[in-house]
Amino acid sequence: MQIIRTRSEMHSFSALHAGKIGFVPTMGYLHAGHISLVERARAEQSVVVVSIFVNPAQFNDPKDLEKYPVDLDRDFAMLEKAGVDAVFCPARSEVYPNGVPALRMSYDEVMNRLCGAGRPGHFEGVLLVVHNLFMWVRPQRAYFGLKDYQQYLLIKRMATDLELGVEAVGCPLVREADGLAMSSRNVRLTAAGRVAALAISKALFAAAELWRKGETAAAVQAALNSLLTPLQVEYALICDADSLATVLPGAPRPARVVIAVAAFVDGVRLIDNVLLT
Amino acid sequence: MQIIRTRSEMHSFSALHAGKIGFVPTMGYLHAGHISLVERARAEQSVVVVSIFVNPAQFNDPKDLEKYPVDLDRDFAMLEKAGVDAVFCPARSEVYPNGVPALRMSYDEVMNRLCGAGRPGHFEGVLLVVHNLFMWVRPQRAYFGLKDYQQYLLIKRMATDLELGVEAVGCPLVREADGLAMSSRNVRLTAAGRVAALAISKALFAAAELWRKGETAAAVQAALNSLLTPLQVEYALICDADSLATVLPGAPRPARVVIAVAAFVDGVRLIDNVLLT
Repeated sequence: MQIIRTRSEMHSFSALHAGKIGFVPTMGYLHAGHISLVERARAEQSVVVVSIFVNPAQFNDPKDLEKYPVDLDRDFAMLEKAGVDAVFCPARSEVYPNGVPALRMSYDEVMNRLCGAGRPGHFEGVLLVVHNLFMWVRPQRAYFGLKDYQQYLLIKRMATDLELGVEAVGCPLVREADGLAMSSRNVRLTAAGRVAALAISKALFAAAELWRKGETAAAVQAALNSLLTPLQVEYALICDADSLATVLPGAPRPARVVIAVAAFVDGVRLIDNVLLT
Repeated sequence: MQIIRTRSEMHSFSALHAGKIGFVPTMGYLHAGHISLVERARAEQSVVVVSIFVNPAQFNDPKDLEKYPVDLDRDFAMLEKAGVDAVFCPARSEVYPNGVPALRMSYDEVMNRLCGAGRPGHFEGVLLVVHNLFMWVRPQRAYFGLKDYQQYLLIKRMATDLELGVEAVGCPLVREADGLAMSSRNVRLTAAGRVAALAISKALFAAAELWRKGETAAAVQAALNSLLTPLQVEYALICDADSLATVLPGAPRPARVVIAVAAFVDGVRLIDNVLLT
């Protein structure tokens, strides 16, 4: 497994494997969710590149950036075992040699909803870094977990709208045995927080079940709110899965909905969702 | 000279000539200013591609779009004579198969000044189409007239910040013998308007002369305003050539300034500038 630190090395590698690269961009501190993306990439492309870069441009809270867990040796071992061909882990100065650019890439409507409402500038930072990672890695396909559903939606649109020649593939959210959505942030939970956090997936599963049974948006929303009462909720919403617009009481049921939650447990921001199609 | 109408043909052409392409994006109705860009491209790159596309995304005024002059046969003849290898002139449905995307690429500070202040959405539309033209044409270098100085500045920053691998080259503004900056829009001027429009370049030359002599920003601004009195002026400003911030009275003189004017003559919007370094 090749470890690549600079943009120019990355360019040489991608030129050599043009048209064959499956790419998994990550911020490191990997878990089984990431490895499932690597496995999908391996099944579909002959060369697999994973990037590890904790992107300062997407952290609206500097404390969250500071606390983001890092363990490169452990990540490298996991990726080597998973059969990855190259890991691109550039320094910040390599990605942003002149600091974070002032260029903002935005989808005003989709971006300001859900996570975008509480994290101003977050998705602009995500789109910027993913765009540039695509330029360096030049993948055929790139794989994203549907846990970050809004992120996936925005990246997929950007890849199409900016003619990046990359197919963004959304892959199923991976959960712990008890239902908690896997996240690099879970390691920051206390034992009690770890138990409390289960309320998120439980509330989502219950809401999804009610929705499938044909309950109204208002009824599902009420159940969701009630089940999440013990937590500090940032949002808990039933949304059209394409526009992310909230499904209003009495409005027609969209063909595809996503029920999405962001909540704080032990001061750790956790997100989760269920996609109903 | 090859005439290319589709993105896929353009891709094939650029793959064949990778690393050798000089690119001149235009909206057609060419004049000597465009041809000077083509000549520069020919001198520096072995393959020259010109695009002709009247980009609806950058017209904030639908009437202006409607009135934009078109004469493809004349353009083709000029480009053939100038030794262009390929002309890319896609239909709107080829460039925007799903309509103009909602993605906005913006530099809030630089973009909202000068032309950006009066034409909301204009530069966002320019950056979008130039980004995507770069993706299809894959040039080594792209050539832009300094008449659209703000546009050049924004494109150059985008090409760097988004790692497009394209060097944006700014080329001198080309003038008619009497000083009027060449523009595809000049054809819409009446005979009287054509004469009245000369006030723009005259005012700029006089202001530049005063600035070079060391006059204060306030004095140069006053002269500029006075010389432009007969016209309907949108802006006439002395700006820092990098940030486009207006040079305020009493502030230190920047190393590089641009004096820029936008004015309406016969209802036709004309722009011009002088760059002082």
